[in-house]
Amino acid sequence: MMLDAQWITGFTDGEGCFHVSVNPHKEMSVGYQVLPEFTVVQHKKDIQILHAMKAYFKCGVVRTNHGDRYAYRVRSIEHLASIIIPFFEKHSLKTKKNLDFLAFRDVIHMMQKKEHLTKEGVKSIQKIINSMNRNRK
Amino acid sequence: MMLDAQWITGFTDGEGCFHVSVNPHKEMSVGYQVLPEFTVVQHKKDIQILHAMKAYFKCGVVRTNHGDRYAYRVRSIEHLASIIIPFFEKHSLKTKKNLDFLAFRDVIHMMQKKEHLTKEGVKSIQKIINSMNRNRK
Repeated sequence: MMLDAQWITGFTDGEGCFHVSVNPHKEMSVGYQVLPEFTVVQHKKDIQILHAMKAYFKCGVVRTNHGDRYAYRVRSIEHLASIIIPFFEKHSLKTKKNLDFLAFRDVIHMMQKKEHLTKEGVKSIQKIINSMNRNRK
Repeated sequence: MMLDAQWITGFTDGEGCFHVSVNPHKEMSVGYQVLPEFTVVQHKKDIQILHAMKAYFKCGVVRTNHGDRYAYRVRSIEHLASIIIPFFEKHSLKTKKNLDFLAFRDVIHMMQKKEHLTKEGVKSIQKIINSMNRNRK
């Protein structure tokens, strides 16, 4: 199955998620791990769509999610920064999810500068995450 | 906001719904009313997307749905047959929702031939509806 860039943008406006979690983590010197991910979740009957997205972006994985649902997921900072973000910069999301994308992009850029490894950086990222949650309401 | 056909297809694969209801109706000689509709539901923060779809298709309405949600909705048999169906024939849905679309199209074609005004027709439509529900599971 070949996907079109605009189809992917429309489908992501509906089903995609740009998410950043900050989790307590003993092995990180700052005490927290910042984990950004781009995901698209579908019922298993449409798992072929997730594999087609993986093939299109040439990165990420398809994994079980909850129950009968599967997720296409990209967590690698390198792949998010070099593939996923440039794609959605070129093909803008049309819903308010674009605000989440822009906040997500800010976090990835901070992580590229290793700011998530400082306490100040984690605080700033937490503020950005809070703004993302507001956009979804 | 200008929408692209492939974006609309991707967004409909995520958020769209092709639905047919058969409701008891005293004023119909066959005792039932067949009501097909194409809908896309969004939170009110993205109501501009629904208006952009209405502008693209030049038919349908934007109405409140439940709570903070709004729907773009096309119910006119004429508009479904002459605008919505040809669009999704040209720009195929990529998820299993396409099976719902094809069943929906069968119902519209039957209604154009007035088959929904006979008891046999309503029975056949009910069978098609049951198959649509199966596709969604």
